[in-house]
Amino acid sequence: MVQGESNKSANSSKHHMVGGEGPHSYLRNSEYQKQLLLSADDSIQDLISHHLDAGNPPRTFRIADFGCSVGPNAIQAVENIIKAVKIKFENSRSTPDFHVFFNDLIGSDFDTLFKNLPSPRNYFAAASPGSFHTQLFPKSTLNFAHCSTALHWLSRIPVEVTDRSSPAWNAGRIHYSGAGQAVRQAYSDQYAADMEAFLTARATELVPGGLMAVVVLGFPDGVVSSDSSIGKAFDILGSCLCDMARAGKIDEERVDSFNLPFYYPSPSELTALIEANGSYRIEKMAALAAPMRRRPDAAVLTSHLRAVIEVLVEEHFGNGVVEELFARHYEKLLKSPILVDEKFWKETNYFVFLKREEDL
Amino acid sequence: MVQGESNKSANSSKHHMVGGEGPHSYLRNSEYQKQLLLSADDSIQDLISHHLDAGNPPRTFRIADFGCSVGPNAIQAVENIIKAVKIKFENSRSTPDFHVFFNDLIGSDFDTLFKNLPSPRNYFAAASPGSFHTQLFPKSTLNFAHCSTALHWLSRIPVEVTDRSSPAWNAGRIHYSGAGQAVRQAYSDQYAADMEAFLTARATELVPGGLMAVVVLGFPDGVVSSDSSIGKAFDILGSCLCDMARAGKIDEERVDSFNLPFYYPSPSELTALIEANGSYRIEKMAALAAPMRRRPDAAVLTSHLRAVIEVLVEEHFGNGVVEELFARHYEKLLKSPILVDEKFWKETNYFVFLKREEDL
Repeated sequence: MVQGESNKSANSSKHHMVGGEGPHSYLRNSEYQKQLLLSADDSIQDLISHHLDAGNPPRTFRIADFGCSVGPNAIQAVENIIKAVKIKFENSRSTPDFHVFFNDLIGSDFDTLFKNLPSPRNYFAAASPGSFHTQLFPKSTLNFAHCSTALHWLSRIPVEVTDRSSPAWNAGRIHYSGAGQAVRQAYSDQYAADMEAFLTARATELVPGGLMAVVVLGFPDGVVSSDSSIGKAFDILGSCLCDMARAGKIDEERVDSFNLPFYYPSPSELTALIEANGSYRIEKMAALAAPMRRRPDAAVLTSHLRAVIEVLVEEHFGNGVVEELFARHYEKLLKSPILVDEKFWKETNYFVFLKREEDL
Repeated sequence: MVQGESNKSANSSKHHMVGGEGPHSYLRNSEYQKQLLLSADDSIQDLISHHLDAGNPPRTFRIADFGCSVGPNAIQAVENIIKAVKIKFENSRSTPDFHVFFNDLIGSDFDTLFKNLPSPRNYFAAASPGSFHTQLFPKSTLNFAHCSTALHWLSRIPVEVTDRSSPAWNAGRIHYSGAGQAVRQAYSDQYAADMEAFLTARATELVPGGLMAVVVLGFPDGVVSSDSSIGKAFDILGSCLCDMARAGKIDEERVDSFNLPFYYPSPSELTALIEANGSYRIEKMAALAAPMRRRPDAAVLTSHLRAVIEVLVEEHFGNGVVEELFARHYEKLLKSPILVDEKFWKETNYFVFLKREEDL
């Protein structure tokens, strides 16, 4: 039981959203996640009702949200879970106390999270900092794990894509979208390793029969990310960085070595990874309605992208790049077909509900 | 089980040490606490060996540190506890996983605490923000509670001392030291209420037979705080504030309404409060050697005082007061007898080891 791997990666401490409550904060740019959550909430209520063992309520029911960021959506999600669990146990001899754990990386803005906690509340709250690719809780202590739109964050950039001598060297691009097979494979391998680590850690932490709800951002089978609005937006951002390098504002080598730590699986890829792990029964996997599809807007898309990756950009290029970069991104995005042509709106959020096997 | 009372008090969110790692941070001014801890550590090892039930080790052993501040001393304390518990359980069928919770008020610098956590470590760590005068954990889930030199922080300033119409109105002073009986009684009543709340909350959270070690700063029976170096230092600070008011630098009414939220009990007062609560058996109560007695130094004393109360001063008087206030304090302290005369060095840390009754 050795913990704290997350501290060893120089990268991982920067893998978090923009904190605080300013205009570029994640707090003000997480409407998309919130809408997703609302559509996941109903499913979670139903599934808890069907799959939670009501025979013998635990004295303490422990819920953890993994990748909570600054909180509002994570708080809403756990309160929804508590509501469903309470209904399930309402005819039982006793109702449990609820202990809720909010997880994100060290360096995430837990201060804002704590200040967002409602008061009074019907649960005890704690923060469990660290990488969700490692074990964060004692064995068999969690009753419910929740993770929404966080698993596309890789634990690291695949080593090969920043290695000049590798066929997967990803010069002039910042993502696998539109890149060759070797780059895509390097990203896919990293995702598989990360998912295996996540699923194994959670299987250790969950009680037998414990439940897990995850929302995973991905693409339908057969869709390549370069044909999607996400892939195109990353292409645009990459081209803006190249433009700034040509204008002498940033170093070209820094652009070559910059890669985004995101991977978007297909549902069949996801299913294969969960089955290969072998610790869970898949109770449900379904696409959620994607709120962003309805009304793409250049300012909203740019602002959302900035909330998510500003910290990564500043870490890699230093201060003073972000304003110009996202101003350029906005201008180029205005001329992009992804704002008007539905054929690019392919990213899909997959809702997955798992039950940890009773015997492992 | 309604939690979160701490958020309701406008005061309480400011009751924390100076964060970060700068020259005035608590991190750089907690040597005193560290030395105390070392002398408490041996006692804790012995007492765990005697009083922990080794019959049937729990699968998870939960430890909480209350009033952890930014961490180094709290981390050392819990690691000492884990060491002793492991020794106690080494011949058992199984050893527990350790889940450690660090508590302090919302607004405390948990970011620095998280960064101070060793990696790797043999326990899982979490932060539980909120007032330790309220219940912070589910019923019967803690095996060990620890609280070192934090209980002298009152949850609030007694209402009467800032009420002009009360006999306990404390004009021209910032503490009960040297004040009249009504002021001292108001502080003492508040301390009694706070201790009762603390002991009751911990008794709910601890398992039957659970253990608690607390270090309480106080004065021997019969000593009044105005005869102590702490009381004198507060007198000096109060007189500096009055000087600054006379010089027109701060408002006199603001000085009249400023009071420090600290209370220092006697051992017999402490014993009476624990016995009145009725949830614990007192396994040990003893004075610890006081490291500060040996070599009082004006710069160290001023710096320590500043680390502890800078936030309170800024909250009450606004920014721009602190530098001058503590410069004045240092100058006056140089001429004070408390630096040279042992008769003032009376503050004593009491180590108290409690066992929660099996049946309540």
